Amino acid sequence: MNANAPTSEHIVKSYDEELHRLTGEIQRMGEIALAQLDAAIDAVLERDSDSARKVVQSDAAIDTLEHDVSHDVVRLLALRQPMARDLREILAALRIAADIERIGDYAANVAKRSIVLNQSAPVQLAYALPRLARLAENLVREVLAAYRENDADRALEAWTRDEELDEQYTGLFRELLTYMMEDPRNITPCTHLLFMAKNLERIGDHATNIAENVYFLVHGTQIAQTRRKGDATSSLSTIDDPR
Amino acid sequence: MNANAPTSEHIVKSYDEELHRLTGEIQRMGEIALAQLDAAIDAVLERDSDSARKVVQSDAAIDTLEHDVSHDVVRLLALRQPMARDLREILAALRIAADIERIGDYAANVAKRSIVLNQSAPVQLAYALPRLARLAENLVREVLAAYRENDADRALEAWTRDEELDEQYTGLFRELLTYMMEDPRNITPCTHLLFMAKNLERIGDHATNIAENVYFLVHGTQIAQTRRKGDATSSLSTIDDPR
Repeated sequence: MNANAPTSEHIVKSYDEELHRLTGEIQRMGEIALAQLDAAIDAVLERDSDSARKVVQSDAAIDTLEHDVSHDVVRLLALRQPMARDLREILAALRIAADIERIGDYAANVAKRSIVLNQSAPVQLAYALPRLARLAENLVREVLAAYRENDADRALEAWTRDEELDEQYTGLFRELLTYMMEDPRNITPCTHLLFMAKNLERIGDHATNIAENVYFLVHGTQIAQTRRKGDATSSLSTIDDPR
Repeated sequence: MNANAPTSEHIVKSYDEELHRLTGEIQRMGEIALAQLDAAIDAVLERDSDSARKVVQSDAAIDTLEHDVSHDVVRLLALRQPMARDLREILAALRIAADIERIGDYAANVAKRSIVLNQSAPVQLAYALPRLARLAENLVREVLAAYRENDADRALEAWTRDEELDEQYTGLFRELLTYMMEDPRNITPCTHLLFMAKNLERIGDHATNIAENVYFLVHGTQIAQTRRKGDATSSLSTIDDPR
């Protein structure tokens, strides 16, 4: 690594290369997380426990990549002295990698719970979950594209769209409670569906975190707008009264 | 900040001061998060919605502190060129602050859901929650002490104790499902209790993350042991069959 009397040019070139490698690793992590989410939802739809098990097992690959990213970040920070935008880039990489790792965890947890769902009769509402999942997937895909292209506007647009996911989640939450009340046999499967839906809602939150990091990376300032983020079901007292 | 021709001694002293300030901020964050968790649980026990609302509002203070920590980390990385142990220290600070911020979020969510619980008749199992909460609190307190004292053994000991929290959570999860099956009127409050219990289980996970960071900080290696971490209820197919 040009350890013997490196020229300034060498250092700069190598630094760019390393940064490029780092963002490449993160894109790869993101693609794996998306593929995992996709496979998890297919497994839910097709009631395919074998596929679901593969998703659970494959989560380790994302964890390994996150470990690699952290390692590269430490090395970059130690060997170079990044300033301003470069430093923002590296810290954003660290944070975005952590968010992708969490997205992978949630996808794996969806798959894990689908295995349990397959042990009982199909629950009609299992089919509402993929709709929520597609919204979550699109958000993740958008923020990863925004990160790849350094596009703060695209990040901001995705950020605002998380609200749609939250609304769909709240709707599904209410429906699941109704099912549980109609028939006690629905309680166990619907509880798993509740947690699966919650996982998807959390994936949306992590996508907005990534969007915030991309925005900060490009502009050096935080997203100024505020909007209610997160889970409105925390304050659902009855299924008819959301506040 | 000694910008005019600083002596080497000045830089070193100031660096230590800044690092000290950083870890001080994190301890303060941790104490606030613990106080928040304590207040949230008191609010649950006493069915005190006003106190619960205060907890929800106070969460912003932790978020602000985490922002300060991130800011200080960026400054430390930019102005100094930390290596080896110093760099580990700074990265650990960044990660531990993020974990504490999440713990604060979960405490606030427990408080938020308790407000909803207070709108319906008391659910007996609301009283099982504080037991779980005390376990979570103890874990957080232990890992913060381990961080303060640079005590990897203490961190490791807390890390292994998360299993107890997971077991208690699984037991409560089963009990809550039973209650829901007994009487449909229990479904909405017990769903909130399920999510509150899940929040406490997640607080335990973040405490183990902190423990892992303390261990790494001291030894420069990962905790070698492995144990099943997290939520066994993901694979609870019936309340009698945990696997």
